[in-house]
Amino acid sequence: MFMDSAIKLAESVKDEIPVGAVIVKDENIIAAASNRKETENDVTSHAEILVIREAEKKLKNWRLKDCDMYVTLEPCPMCAWAIINAGIRCVYFGSYDVNYGALGSKIDLRKIANSKLKVYGGISEKKCDSILINYFKNMRNKS
Amino acid sequence: MFMDSAIKLAESVKDEIPVGAVIVKDENIIAAASNRKETENDVTSHAEILVIREAEKKLKNWRLKDCDMYVTLEPCPMCAWAIINAGIRCVYFGSYDVNYGALGSKIDLRKIANSKLKVYGGISEKKCDSILINYFKNMRNKS
Repeated sequence: MFMDSAIKLAESVKDEIPVGAVIVKDENIIAAASNRKETENDVTSHAEILVIREAEKKLKNWRLKDCDMYVTLEPCPMCAWAIINAGIRCVYFGSYDVNYGALGSKIDLRKIANSKLKVYGGISEKKCDSILINYFKNMRNKS
Repeated sequence: MFMDSAIKLAESVKDEIPVGAVIVKDENIIAAASNRKETENDVTSHAEILVIREAEKKLKNWRLKDCDMYVTLEPCPMCAWAIINAGIRCVYFGSYDVNYGALGSKIDLRKIANSKLKVYGGISEKKCDSILINYFKNMRNKS
């Protein structure tokens, strides 16, 4: 299952918020990335932005037609807008983000864009939640 | 005036939506970029994202402390969220974007982020508007 690949990417993250994402086209993973904001010292290096840029390079097109994204956490407004503008067909996400989730939880940017993007949240939710919970628990113990 | 530099960048854009942006720290421009979405075939290559990434490299930090952005068009949700998360101090923008502007016109993402970002819109507004209007006029004539 494609969410398992995104989960493995999230689990591979060290010392920053563990999020993983893959883009799937024709039943194949064409791009994969994890959050690298701290590693790359770049506020835009969320997993979703990185995986979109990788898929664009592969397809030589910013229009990611017939592509779906699997991501372990609900996208923030930055990532949600990039996903919508890239014309991604469907997003499957794991954990809901009640604070900053921009595909339904806090706001739904699809309404502003009048977008047809399909969204399914709560995929492998318990597993995705546990990855984030463990990360923040470890952070608190360290500090 | 720093907006003039952003305007010159917007005017230099060929064959895509003309937007220019600079980041200023201690009264100096530390990064400058124009929209390169079509040129780079990357949906994330808006002027604001590119100029943030350049400033991060220069400062070796994703926290753009005491930095201000001058941009010819009100940022979209993707760019507004990146600006907020980078901790930029103040955004000065030219044209208002009633369709997708995410710093007050369509929505205000500062409310979701509980952000202290200061925003001043309508700087050199007529000039910034005319650059966009001319671009879309030429596009219509071509098609």
